[in-house]
Amino acid sequence: MVFENERVRVLEYTDAPGDRTTEHEHPDSVMVTLSSFRRRLHAGDAYRDVDLPTGLARWLPAQRHSGENIGDTASHALFVELKDGGPARPDEARLGPE
Amino acid sequence: MVFENERVRVLEYTDAPGDRTTEHEHPDSVMVTLSSFRRRLHAGDAYRDVDLPTGLARWLPAQRHSGENIGDTASHALFVELKDGGPARPDEARLGPE
Repeated sequence: MVFENERVRVLEYTDAPGDRTTEHEHPDSVMVTLSSFRRRLHAGDAYRDVDLPTGLARWLPAQRHSGENIGDTASHALFVELKDGGPARPDEARLGPE
Repeated sequence: MVFENERVRVLEYTDAPGDRTTEHEHPDSVMVTLSSFRRRLHAGDAYRDVDLPTGLARWLPAQRHSGENIGDTASHALFVELKDGGPARPDEARLGPE
């Protein structure tokens, strides 16, 4: 964790090629990439591949998934998680950044 | 502007050594540096120098200031501006990231 206050929590994530996370939840967040990397995001039986350059900011709507580094570079990203609730839309299928 | 939705607006900022902005306002924001840079932040007669490395996330509480690139590298940063109001504390003196 980078820092937390009453409005946000900021997390830093790094991994190596081949690493895979367990399933976990994200609240509504802005993801900022600090390296370029390729990931496969899994939610149940669905998956989606994303290929992201360095220095990109993307909206990550609240979701539950696992992630797998399918590239040949380390992943390095920051997640700015938003507090205050915000609109919950659990009935929509969302996977990865918008 | 990088993107905007109902919860955030994400802005990208770049400048060159010697550049100075006019006075402007920031809402509560998370700043993420995409380069290392040095800035002098001015608010009225006060100023504060900040020296920031690449890949840093800092809380920038709502404030009004101007900024001056006093280093020898370009500034490159993202601002994740928060919507929904949030606590206003205009009576506290704040300048630059916390």
